[in-house]
Amino acid sequence: MSAIIDNTPSAIVWMQEELKLLDQRQLPQLVVYLQLDDVAAVADAIRQMVVRGAPAIGITAAYGVVIAARQRYAENRQTWQRDLEPDLELLAAARPTAVNLCWALQRMKTLVLTLEGDPFGALEAEAILIHQEDIAANQKMAGLGADLLVADSAVLTHCNAGALATGGVGTALGVIRAGFASGKIDQVFADETRPWLQGARLTAWELVQEQIPVTLLCEGAAARLMQQGKIGWVIVGSDRIAANGDVANKIGTLSLAVLARHFGVKMMVVAPSSTVDMQLASGDLIPIEQRGADELLELEGKRIAAEGAQAWTPAFDVTPAELVDVIVTERGVVWQPSLEKMKSLMG
Amino acid sequence: MSAIIDNTPSAIVWMQEELKLLDQRQLPQLVVYLQLDDVAAVADAIRQMVVRGAPAIGITAAYGVVIAARQRYAENRQTWQRDLEPDLELLAAARPTAVNLCWALQRMKTLVLTLEGDPFGALEAEAILIHQEDIAANQKMAGLGADLLVADSAVLTHCNAGALATGGVGTALGVIRAGFASGKIDQVFADETRPWLQGARLTAWELVQEQIPVTLLCEGAAARLMQQGKIGWVIVGSDRIAANGDVANKIGTLSLAVLARHFGVKMMVVAPSSTVDMQLASGDLIPIEQRGADELLELEGKRIAAEGAQAWTPAFDVTPAELVDVIVTERGVVWQPSLEKMKSLMG
Repeated sequence: MSAIIDNTPSAIVWMQEELKLLDQRQLPQLVVYLQLDDVAAVADAIRQMVVRGAPAIGITAAYGVVIAARQRYAENRQTWQRDLEPDLELLAAARPTAVNLCWALQRMKTLVLTLEGDPFGALEAEAILIHQEDIAANQKMAGLGADLLVADSAVLTHCNAGALATGGVGTALGVIRAGFASGKIDQVFADETRPWLQGARLTAWELVQEQIPVTLLCEGAAARLMQQGKIGWVIVGSDRIAANGDVANKIGTLSLAVLARHFGVKMMVVAPSSTVDMQLASGDLIPIEQRGADELLELEGKRIAAEGAQAWTPAFDVTPAELVDVIVTERGVVWQPSLEKMKSLMG
Repeated sequence: MSAIIDNTPSAIVWMQEELKLLDQRQLPQLVVYLQLDDVAAVADAIRQMVVRGAPAIGITAAYGVVIAARQRYAENRQTWQRDLEPDLELLAAARPTAVNLCWALQRMKTLVLTLEGDPFGALEAEAILIHQEDIAANQKMAGLGADLLVADSAVLTHCNAGALATGGVGTALGVIRAGFASGKIDQVFADETRPWLQGARLTAWELVQEQIPVTLLCEGAAARLMQQGKIGWVIVGSDRIAANGDVANKIGTLSLAVLARHFGVKMMVVAPSSTVDMQLASGDLIPIEQRGADELLELEGKRIAAEGAQAWTPAFDVTPAELVDVIVTERGVVWQPSLEKMKSLMG
C-alpha cells in the first residue's frame, strides 16, 4: 500500500547537527520547538515530557547520545567513551517504563565501543537510522493493523500513540490514519486520558491536522460507549511488551481491555519490535513509573483538587496477554499473544 | 448505632423561610451560599449544578415548590394551584436522570391539590419533612452499609454521594463515614470523576472536613487499583434505580462495576428508596442526560482540548443489576437485586 500521509509537525527534528523537540507540554495552544544543546537538557526534556511516547523517547535518547559524545570527545579524545558512561546512565534513568529508551541506548552504546577517532559521523548516522527505521515500522504497522479491520469500523484509542509519540505516523494512530484513508474507519473516539490529557491535547490535535473527525470522551464514558455498541475495536500503543505478551501502556489501558472483553470489543496493541522486552518474563516485572501527585491535583499550576487530598498516580498499567486480541508489530501480527508466539516473532 | 457526625457544611439550608444553596461549582476554593428567591432561580441552580446529587436536587425542588406557591398565592389566591403547574414543569425539566426530582415534585403536588387558603405553612412543613426524612435515611443506610464490611476494608467511591449530594451525611459517603468511625474502613480512594471533578473537588473536600484520609486517582487507574488488590469494595450512590435493580449513576460507574466483577471486588450501591423508580422496568428506559461538550473540552472557561475536536458527554450510565452485588436503602439491603426483590423491598 502507499505511504500514509502525515500532516502533523514532527515531534523530533534533527537538522544541521542540532536536536529540536516539539514542546508537547504546550500543545495544543502553541507549536513551539525547543533546541537541546547538551545531554542534561535532553534527559530533562524526556523527564518533563517535552517529548513522550515510547518510540519517540527512544529516538530522542539516541540523538542525546550523539550530542553527549560530541561534547565528551571535544573534552577528551582519549577518555570520551568512558566519560560517556554517566551520560548514558542519565538518559536511561529519565523515565523507567518504556523499554525503547534502553533499547536505543544499548544500540548506541554497542556502536560507541567499536569507534575510533571522531565518533560524531557514525553516531549521527546510527541515530538517524533508528529514527528512519521507526518511520518505516510505523508505515508497515499502519498497513498491517488496518488490514485487520472490516469496513465502517468505529474505534477508540487512548493516550497518544501517534506522530507525536513516534518518529513517523504513529503506532495506534498510524493504523487509524491508514484505516481512515482506506475507508475502513469511519469514526474515531479518543479518551481524554487523565491526568496529562494526551488524548484531548495531543491525539485530538493530530487527528484535526489530518482532517480525521475525532470525538473525545472521559475515561469513565468508555464502558457506556462499548455497552451501546458504538465501537468494534480499541487500538492502543505500548511502552513495553513482556516476553509473554503482557502489555504496559498508559494508565487506563487495562480498564479498556477488561471492558472490551466484557462487551465483545476487540483489543489491538500496535508497537514496534523495539518495544518488546524479551528479557522480562511477564508484565508484573515491568517497572511502573509513579508521576508526581501534582499532575492529578493541579492543572496548569492551578490547584483543582481539595487541599489535604492525596493522589495515587501510576503513569502506566499492565494488561495481561489474555486480554489482548492482537499485537501488531512491523515484524508481523500476533493473535492471542503468548510466550511461544512472541519468541517466534522476535526470532 | 449512634448518629454519624457530619462536619461538612449543608448543601441546602432552609432558614427564615428562605432557601440557600452551597454553590458547589465554587468548591473547594470557596464556600459560598446563594439565596434563591424565585422558582426560575431554583430550576437554574439545579440545571447549572449549584446543587447536584439525586437526593439533594429532590429536596431543593421541594423547597422550590414552597417558593413558587408562595408567589403564585400572593399573585392570585383563586388560581394559584393552576398557576403553579408551569413552575412544577420547569423544576421537573431541570435535569432528567435523577428520579428523586420527580418523586419530590409529585409528593408536593399531591399535597398542593388538597390545600385551601394560604398554602405556605403546609408546603413548607412537607418540604422540611422530605429534607428530614432524607437525613434519617442517610443515617439508616450508613449503618446498614457499614455492617456489610469486614474490618480493615479499603474502598473506592466515585463522584460525590456525600453530604453535598443529600440532605444528611450522604449515601455512599454515609457508609464510608460510618465504616471509618467504626474502624471497618481504613483507606478511602476516590475517582476524581471527570469531567466535572466531583471526586477531586467535592468528595475529597468532604472527607478532608471529616478528617478521613482520602487518596484521589483518575478513573483510568481504577483497574490497576483493583488488579493490585488494594480495595475490597466499590461504594457508589445512584440517580435512579429501575424496577429490576439496574442502576443509573454518574458516568464511570458502569466501568467500575465491570472491573469490580472482573477483579473480584464487591459493588455496593447506596440510595434512598426515593431513588427507586418502579415505573421503569429496566435501566435502558432511564433518560440519560447529555451535558454540554464544554464540560469536557474546557476547564473553568479555558479550552484544554484541541480546537476542532468534538465531545461525547453522557452524564450518567446504567449498570445492569447482575453487576451489582448489593443495594442498600433505608428500607433494607438487597443482595443480587432483581425485580422480585425490588418489589418486595418497595412493597
